[in-house]
Amino acid sequence: MGASLPDTMTAMGFDAPGGPEVFRPESQPVPRPGPGEVLIRVAYAGVNRPDVIQRQGFYPPPPGASPIPGLEIAGRVVEAGEGAGSELIGHEVCALVSGGGYAEYCLADARHCLPVPAGVPMAQAAALPETLFTVWHNVFERGFAREGETLLVHGGTSGIGTMAIMLGKAFGLTVITTAGSSGKCDAARALGADLAINYRQEDFVEEVKTFTGGKGVNVVLDMVSGDYVPRNLACLAEDGRHVTIAVLGGLKATIDMALVMRKRLMLTGSTLRARSAEFKAFLADEIAENAWPLVADGTIRPVMDQTFPLAEAAAAHARMEGGDHIGKIVLKVAGG
Amino acid sequence: MGASLPDTMTAMGFDAPGGPEVFRPESQPVPRPGPGEVLIRVAYAGVNRPDVIQRQGFYPPPPGASPIPGLEIAGRVVEAGEGAGSELIGHEVCALVSGGGYAEYCLADARHCLPVPAGVPMAQAAALPETLFTVWHNVFERGFAREGETLLVHGGTSGIGTMAIMLGKAFGLTVITTAGSSGKCDAARALGADLAINYRQEDFVEEVKTFTGGKGVNVVLDMVSGDYVPRNLACLAEDGRHVTIAVLGGLKATIDMALVMRKRLMLTGSTLRARSAEFKAFLADEIAENAWPLVADGTIRPVMDQTFPLAEAAAAHARMEGGDHIGKIVLKVAGG
Repeated sequence: MGASLPDTMTAMGFDAPGGPEVFRPESQPVPRPGPGEVLIRVAYAGVNRPDVIQRQGFYPPPPGASPIPGLEIAGRVVEAGEGAGSELIGHEVCALVSGGGYAEYCLADARHCLPVPAGVPMAQAAALPETLFTVWHNVFERGFAREGETLLVHGGTSGIGTMAIMLGKAFGLTVITTAGSSGKCDAARALGADLAINYRQEDFVEEVKTFTGGKGVNVVLDMVSGDYVPRNLACLAEDGRHVTIAVLGGLKATIDMALVMRKRLMLTGSTLRARSAEFKAFLADEIAENAWPLVADGTIRPVMDQTFPLAEAAAAHARMEGGDHIGKIVLKVAGG
Repeated sequence: MGASLPDTMTAMGFDAPGGPEVFRPESQPVPRPGPGEVLIRVAYAGVNRPDVIQRQGFYPPPPGASPIPGLEIAGRVVEAGEGAGSELIGHEVCALVSGGGYAEYCLADARHCLPVPAGVPMAQAAALPETLFTVWHNVFERGFAREGETLLVHGGTSGIGTMAIMLGKAFGLTVITTAGSSGKCDAARALGADLAINYRQEDFVEEVKTFTGGKGVNVVLDMVSGDYVPRNLACLAEDGRHVTIAVLGGLKATIDMALVMRKRLMLTGSTLRARSAEFKAFLADEIAENAWPLVADGTIRPVMDQTFPLAEAAAAHARMEGGDHIGKIVLKVAGG
């Protein structure tokens, strides 16, 4: 099928970091898959917070990654590199990629692809990998959340937040979330959140304390960091785990280490993009086995906010930065 | 044997918190063992930092614990409560206790006793439980230190520090330590430390970086906390673990949460005294199986600083607070 591929494609890039307006289309050579890679004709690309931070100039692509933004895609496999499994060719997949999603064609490690289940629209499939991989790893593997435990996740209507609510409920957790309006709290509750706290009107520490009968939560999935960290720690039960996946509220946190000792807390965190291809392959296997059946049967479906054409990546970023979105924003690249 | 026990005993207590001089002998009823407990005629009692903090008024005994200081003892079992195993009577044991060690008789949970191996003097046996339980749990169970990894432990000539060096070396770790004089660094190296850094003359962050070829250490056992924490995190390798067991340098630590994410660090900590009797029994079993053979064969022997009579508990505390000690300080209670 490689013979029918064009030589060039359109991608959305930028010359220098800045606001959403720096995006402009560029013509790029269509990349060719190396060993273990597949080339995907992109139907949709998910938009994620790290893309915004990359565009702002604060999150440079890791070595070897495409400078084009875009960490997740769905589309059809059109070419397979050596050892990548030519049986994938022609199949619809979604994939976690280390960059390059905002383009007509994108390379992916064959091990980082998941088949799009029947009945799942491609736009939704493109909205799954980044949040699913991130939430799965950080809540269950890094935060050791177990059935019967309680999870606090901030930003309950963000892509991460909505996924954390759905996955948490699917695996038997009680889920508490925060959001910035009563409408967003309603949306979080509709997704299954057991408690949604409007952080503009209520002190989430007090609300968590009341809801848990003073016991606290077992896991916090934190993307705010900064001065939220000591408040999160106040929400944690004994042996509680605090997992940071973003620092939207600030890098520096002042922590009472005696509290860490007394409650035997654990603080950790991770970034997904920088992990090894082997790690991501392992994670994809875990997800294929444990979470993908829930996608296939409809238990887990990404909450979709809005779809923009690829050429309007700037508008998509402006919407994410505006903060009014509920769920995932995606770019439509080709018909799907 | 209970019939021959006196009604009262001498213990070292205090009326109100303060300096070492607040200690004074008091007459107390000899306690009687409840279910699962044994009564030990104390030969030696170990002196530990938490005893000092308790005497200063900042570490009240947990509910149910004796108000008399003393967290570890060695002596002869003279009485056994219901279900505690009367076969222990007459045997020499050392024990982790939740308080009450500075006395002629002390109760212990039978499951928290370890037999004193042949050839180990009772003074040394009394100096083992607190540091051995603490280091074992925090370095290996909480910090997940594995053979081939590198451990940084501050205070390399403290009771904890000396035990961490010995245990670390016995289990295949590279051990880096800090101490406050060249003499103390020599002592740490003599115990097996691969690198001993005089923190008054050198920046331990730089020294660790150089020694590890820029890679960093896998585990930090931290008893300083405060402004050491960000420096400790700078010493950690990717996936490194930071375990706090004391906050001698201050409670509050300001942490770069983006660094926690980027290096996937883990910060945790614990206090031993507050743990459940079941947990301590589990830990004692682990230690009996894994570390106690190394005590029996002489691989691990506590570094002994100085022995004081029980009546001179004040002088023992003054020595610990002076900071000139190398290794363990013990109180001699009865002939042994």
